[in-house]
Amino acid sequence: MTNPAARAYRATISYDGSAYFGWQRQPNRPTVQGQIEQALLKITGQEISVIGSGRTDTGVHALGQVIRFSVATRLDLDTLRRAIDANLPPDISIRDVAYTTKAFHPVRDAIHKRYRYIIQAGTHRDVLARNLEWWMPRPLDPDAMRQGAQHLQGEHDFAALQTAGSKRATTVRTIHEITVEQESAQVWTKTVIEVQANGFLYNMVRNIVGTLVLVGHGERSPAWVAEVIQSRDRRMAGPTAPPQGLFLVSVEYPSDEEAPESGTELTS
Amino acid sequence: MTNPAARAYRATISYDGSAYFGWQRQPNRPTVQGQIEQALLKITGQEISVIGSGRTDTGVHALGQVIRFSVATRLDLDTLRRAIDANLPPDISIRDVAYTTKAFHPVRDAIHKRYRYIIQAGTHRDVLARNLEWWMPRPLDPDAMRQGAQHLQGEHDFAALQTAGSKRATTVRTIHEITVEQESAQVWTKTVIEVQANGFLYNMVRNIVGTLVLVGHGERSPAWVAEVIQSRDRRMAGPTAPPQGLFLVSVEYPSDEEAPESGTELTS
Repeated sequence: MTNPAARAYRATISYDGSAYFGWQRQPNRPTVQGQIEQALLKITGQEISVIGSGRTDTGVHALGQVIRFSVATRLDLDTLRRAIDANLPPDISIRDVAYTTKAFHPVRDAIHKRYRYIIQAGTHRDVLARNLEWWMPRPLDPDAMRQGAQHLQGEHDFAALQTAGSKRATTVRTIHEITVEQESAQVWTKTVIEVQANGFLYNMVRNIVGTLVLVGHGERSPAWVAEVIQSRDRRMAGPTAPPQGLFLVSVEYPSDEEAPESGTELTS
Repeated sequence: MTNPAARAYRATISYDGSAYFGWQRQPNRPTVQGQIEQALLKITGQEISVIGSGRTDTGVHALGQVIRFSVATRLDLDTLRRAIDANLPPDISIRDVAYTTKAFHPVRDAIHKRYRYIIQAGTHRDVLARNLEWWMPRPLDPDAMRQGAQHLQGEHDFAALQTAGSKRATTVRTIHEITVEQESAQVWTKTVIEVQANGFLYNMVRNIVGTLVLVGHGERSPAWVAEVIQSRDRRMAGPTAPPQGLFLVSVEYPSDEEAPESGTELTS
């Protein structure tokens, strides 16, 4: 029996980022990419490079990170998924695996991404969610935050909300949707900020959240958010919110990127 | 200035039990009781013994564990609470502190306790809740579980649902309420079992859950739960559910045990 040819796969993974030095593979440090590549190595004996739709930072989580890899295996899709899952640590899980085309690229082909940020406000800490939220004692005014967030919607130069050091060709992005929802449960008030955009600059969501929190605390007016954007100056915006409240929720691709059921054989 | 006299305090604490060898103080092992006593030692310089309403096992959590301790301090209640909280690790939090009477005892005076157990069923693991639920791939039938649970309600000899090795004067307890709720969120189905009783035998909730899961999977009929109780034989019941899905929700005391605002001075 000859070895099967390598095929391209697309998969969705979830992880609790608390224990990892972010997504990207690093020598001698646990990362999410490193864990997935190790699982694939164990199953297939092949050193496989996994491409992710985005590099989440240390402590940041994902509900629907999209990855692509090529592997030569006779395992069917569900068996492959379960084999990978069984070789991942408890804080990383693989949700689905599908065949994809040779051309599919998780970063380049993404139409938009959605992030969620969770803040809990209350007089005492919610110990069960300590790695999954930004806890603060002071309550937030969701109406003021919503008004402030309106100034971020649409196409803007988001240079003021980009952490320095990142180099991108352009700092113009389009936010399709930004929502601020608040619900009260027992002794905490949970504020959930969701942002969907065609792309994100480095730390953009965490800088948006740090900026909107100043508005939610009444330290700045909602209209000030427009001034921040116009300034294109990072020093004008609020502080960077901590990583543990941030979740990569989903990544969308054009439907014509959907994988054919049969898969496409690659020579890798 | 003379030292203040010791006073009795009652407090409510929450914890994520994942990192602890249960509630009870043990030499050279992290326990919840040990952490609270260490925090009190740091603040007051006094070696203070803390009494809890119940000894949760390794990996079991609490939303409202009630504790009592005596300490000589001039700190007012809120300052004391914040001082203790600031000296606790991120997975333990102190929710409130009140004065109580010298006579108050968290175990003896409890009228009833409430526990919650969370099961998630789905084809892939929920990584974010991995320490806070029992994950299983097979779905559960909540109606069958509810019917089975009806046989547990009221006063019964629960010897069949007590893990061997525990010695109690009687194995008769009264379950005031047992509920099974199920909700579907995205790819998981969450089943929440809550039990309120005047007291619990060792591992009783986890044995109830392991028993009801057999019913929920259709391996046993709801009526079988009545047979289990009647047998008074632990081997008749289902397996012990794992600890990480279990939460001590609350402990109730008679209202006349409520603390006077002024507190009662003790000579300790």
